[in-house]
Amino acid sequence: MTTTKQWFERHAADLQDALAHWKARDFYGSPYAEIPSEKIFGEGAAAKGRERFEALLQNAFDLPGHPQAGEVGSEQSPYSLDLGIRYPHNDAGALVNLCQRAMRPWRDADIDARAGVLTETLQRLARDSFCMANAVMHTSGQGFMMAFQAGASHALQRALESVAAGYGQLRDIPAEAVWEKPQGKKPPLRLQKRFRALPRGVAAVIGCSTFPTWNSYPAIFANLMCGNGVIVKPHPGAVLPLALTVRALRETLAEAGMDANLVLLAADDEKKPLAKDLAGQSAVKLIDYTGNTKFGDWLEASATSGRRVFTEKAGVNCVVIDDIAETEKAAANLALSLSLYSGQMCTTPQNLFITKTKHDDFLAALEAGFERWLGDDAQASEILGAIQSSATMERRNEAAKKAKALIDRAPPKHPAYPKARIASPLLLQGDAAGDLHRREWFGPVSFLIPVDDKHAALQEMRRCFADFGALTAGVYSDDEDFLAEAENACAETGAHVALNLRGATLINHSAAFSDPHGSGANPAANACITDAAFVALRYYIAQSRRLAT
Amino acid sequence: MTTTKQWFERHAADLQDALAHWKARDFYGSPYAEIPSEKIFGEGAAAKGRERFEALLQNAFDLPGHPQAGEVGSEQSPYSLDLGIRYPHNDAGALVNLCQRAMRPWRDADIDARAGVLTETLQRLARDSFCMANAVMHTSGQGFMMAFQAGASHALQRALESVAAGYGQLRDIPAEAVWEKPQGKKPPLRLQKRFRALPRGVAAVIGCSTFPTWNSYPAIFANLMCGNGVIVKPHPGAVLPLALTVRALRETLAEAGMDANLVLLAADDEKKPLAKDLAGQSAVKLIDYTGNTKFGDWLEASATSGRRVFTEKAGVNCVVIDDIAETEKAAANLALSLSLYSGQMCTTPQNLFITKTKHDDFLAALEAGFERWLGDDAQASEILGAIQSSATMERRNEAAKKAKALIDRAPPKHPAYPKARIASPLLLQGDAAGDLHRREWFGPVSFLIPVDDKHAALQEMRRCFADFGALTAGVYSDDEDFLAEAENACAETGAHVALNLRGATLINHSAAFSDPHGSGANPAANACITDAAFVALRYYIAQSRRLAT
Repeated sequence: MTTTKQWFERHAADLQDALAHWKARDFYGSPYAEIPSEKIFGEGAAAKGRERFEALLQNAFDLPGHPQAGEVGSEQSPYSLDLGIRYPHNDAGALVNLCQRAMRPWRDADIDARAGVLTETLQRLARDSFCMANAVMHTSGQGFMMAFQAGASHALQRALESVAAGYGQLRDIPAEAVWEKPQGKKPPLRLQKRFRALPRGVAAVIGCSTFPTWNSYPAIFANLMCGNGVIVKPHPGAVLPLALTVRALRETLAEAGMDANLVLLAADDEKKPLAKDLAGQSAVKLIDYTGNTKFGDWLEASATSGRRVFTEKAGVNCVVIDDIAETEKAAANLALSLSLYSGQMCTTPQNLFITKTKHDDFLAALEAGFERWLGDDAQASEILGAIQSSATMERRNEAAKKAKALIDRAPPKHPAYPKARIASPLLLQGDAAGDLHRREWFGPVSFLIPVDDKHAALQEMRRCFADFGALTAGVYSDDEDFLAEAENACAETGAHVALNLRGATLINHSAAFSDPHGSGANPAANACITDAAFVALRYYIAQSRRLAT
Repeated sequence: MTTTKQWFERHAADLQDALAHWKARDFYGSPYAEIPSEKIFGEGAAAKGRERFEALLQNAFDLPGHPQAGEVGSEQSPYSLDLGIRYPHNDAGALVNLCQRAMRPWRDADIDARAGVLTETLQRLARDSFCMANAVMHTSGQGFMMAFQAGASHALQRALESVAAGYGQLRDIPAEAVWEKPQGKKPPLRLQKRFRALPRGVAAVIGCSTFPTWNSYPAIFANLMCGNGVIVKPHPGAVLPLALTVRALRETLAEAGMDANLVLLAADDEKKPLAKDLAGQSAVKLIDYTGNTKFGDWLEASATSGRRVFTEKAGVNCVVIDDIAETEKAAANLALSLSLYSGQMCTTPQNLFITKTKHDDFLAALEAGFERWLGDDAQASEILGAIQSSATMERRNEAAKKAKALIDRAPPKHPAYPKARIASPLLLQGDAAGDLHRREWFGPVSFLIPVDDKHAALQEMRRCFADFGALTAGVYSDDEDFLAEAENACAETGAHVALNLRGATLINHSAAFSDPHGSGANPAANACITDAAFVALRYYIAQSRRLAT
């Protein structure tokens, strides 16, 4: 049995389960464990993963067979750890040429073989989750647990989701058909038709610094499932997690007898940026991008002549707080939403619209909520993580000058990394009539904005979504009619909404197989992870026909 | 039972059949008869259809309830019939506002209701095929039989195909899911999730003058199936077929209790053009366009902030002719391909690459082929139709000055319309080293281009496809290895290929439910009628979630 067939059979049940649950959008307990437990990963797994990570530091990153014209490396751990890893650097044109040349055998491999290689890679990456968690933690600044979950397990789930979605669509395209058209008394017209689902070409996936794996895996793996070659361009501040991913993919590709240059790393830095160069290559037919709106819009406008561009850009997530009985529970839930990874999630709420009469009570409850989560330095450090970019810290300082601070806690002391770049959430007094909340303040900045009533809140939320985009929304209300109205307003403006959350489930969370991430229906994103279009755009159907014999 | 439910039940079997055959891509004998027979359509149907058409001439086109700020009307029948029909004209902004306001009840109608309205409309349009055939004939210039088939029956089939494809995808999106995540010994997390597939917004469908219905129906009906409102902007030279369509849709919508302004006519003329104005409206979230490459590229670049643009632009379809035993059959088939509707099909071959040694023999066979199809004036008139635009006639004249004519038959005399704008196919001597064939010469112009051997032919074909685009390709060869190579070359460059056609099946033909039209993989089109992406881009998923009780 061939290697790829063995791999496919090994993971076929997972693939089928993933596809079935993705279609049903219910819970799927994926094969990639989210608990960093040595019961699951084996004794010593944590230490070994840490060692594997540390062995990478101060070294040239080893990517066997990868082209290398120069060297880059400018990652800084937000936890102050000295990384010093160097990566191969190449011109965009050279990468595109190599990737293109590597595509044919992968394109011609059947979909089971492709799915086998990809699911095997995912499982190997899962096995190395402790190393990946360290890599994600020390580039993005996420706390270790979050880095383990979002950076490894949940990213792998998102990858499997896109593999399954692609696999399902490709499997449903018939390879052949006999087309027989009756001609009255004459013999029928009979045509033999053949259909092939072909990849669009070279794909570029441009990652972000805060979720280097989670935000890139769906595109990387959907592209590969559909037969495309992929050039992975990480954010210069978070290369390592994607370099590990590229290495894992190149290893399984080589073992499967494929050209490993199907997957290439386009590491860059501020002096030698590659994103624009990649977009300038006409052979790049697919671009996925997570980042600022200006460049995202520019990329979208480059999508002529069959190029497809998928973007996730800035947004202004909002929450509406109506009169509710269980204020404390809602505020505690929301305080955790605002604290988690210091608001450096594209799903973190920013604008909290609240009826005037409720303002002071809710503020007090929020304060208690923050105290609950952040009162202890060790727990606070884990929840808040570190601030990925100094620009985010500057943004927090800038915001603090523009409005009255309602909550501005001192940053905790990190027990392991005293020099880590850490900030506590900043809650500012917002003004519904002002413009301060009508832009994204990425990071630990949010606004409590009093409004006359809940309907005014809904109206301003809707305006924010339509004008500035949003991925998520939250509504707290005991009024079912209002919840229905709010649900509809969010649906119409393309923000996925969470109603009356309590406890451990947060607005920020987005579960693979079930929760769509982005809708493409407001300025925050032009695509959805993962709907039918997310994979359908990555291949095309080629037909041939001839008279049937 | 409600009207829409009755309609849905009446047509549900057709819808299911259409979906099943579209998935299998085999033949579907649709409910819209393609034979203009009074046995099918009832005694006197032809005369009644003609009368209905004639009653429209020299009149203001009646669109009850449609807005009207002004009046336009500049259609000229290529058969010299005086049309003189006037249509309501409105500003783009006014149309968009009205359309947007009409969307809510349609959006909130269930998919069965929408499918019921659309399939009922299609059946009513089918019943009136004789009138539509006259309308298509006297705007596009198609011969009557072609106007009946491509303009009515086959266009309706393409519409049903897109309704079925959309219906299938929407039906597969779960309305609800309970998401239950185990928490070890603690009670599971349980979330109640709700999903809605929502329309993207107002859609603009910009039609062409040669296939006003066939090229616009897939978009119009896919948009409506997915809940969008549609503004139909016909080519100023071929308004009537789409005005009849808009009227039919508005009638069923009104009968179903919907706001008829969900479907609006954006009739324009050269003095008051509307395409750019419609594209300038940010509320227009979907644009479908058939026409020249320059404007198509401009529209594609306008696709930011979640707008989706589907284009079909210029292309250079090619045929490779290898040494074959049955030269006469191949040439006869190809001569019909070149003659049909005077090459005014986006699927008509233009460049015929032939091995040098075969050139003279094949030319002689082509001449015989043309004589067979065009030797009789009545038959020739039916096959050639008329030339839609004087620009196409000028283009033929321009081409004739640039190269040696190999075949340049005198135009036939039309038995019924002696003043019709008619031209016979012009076959020019091409030069593989020159540039003359490296652009589209839309209309009755083709090139016979000698090459050293079949591999050189394939290479030049591939280059044409990659650089200038193509919808179709043809290959004639007795060498199975070469056919496989050619099949692969066409697939790689996104041109659907027909191999060794003989008899009545032409390269130009594209059958609904089975043949993809366009691939999006070369410059001729960025989309495919109809693949999964063609419908998947026209809706988005909105989610809400809350704790399950």
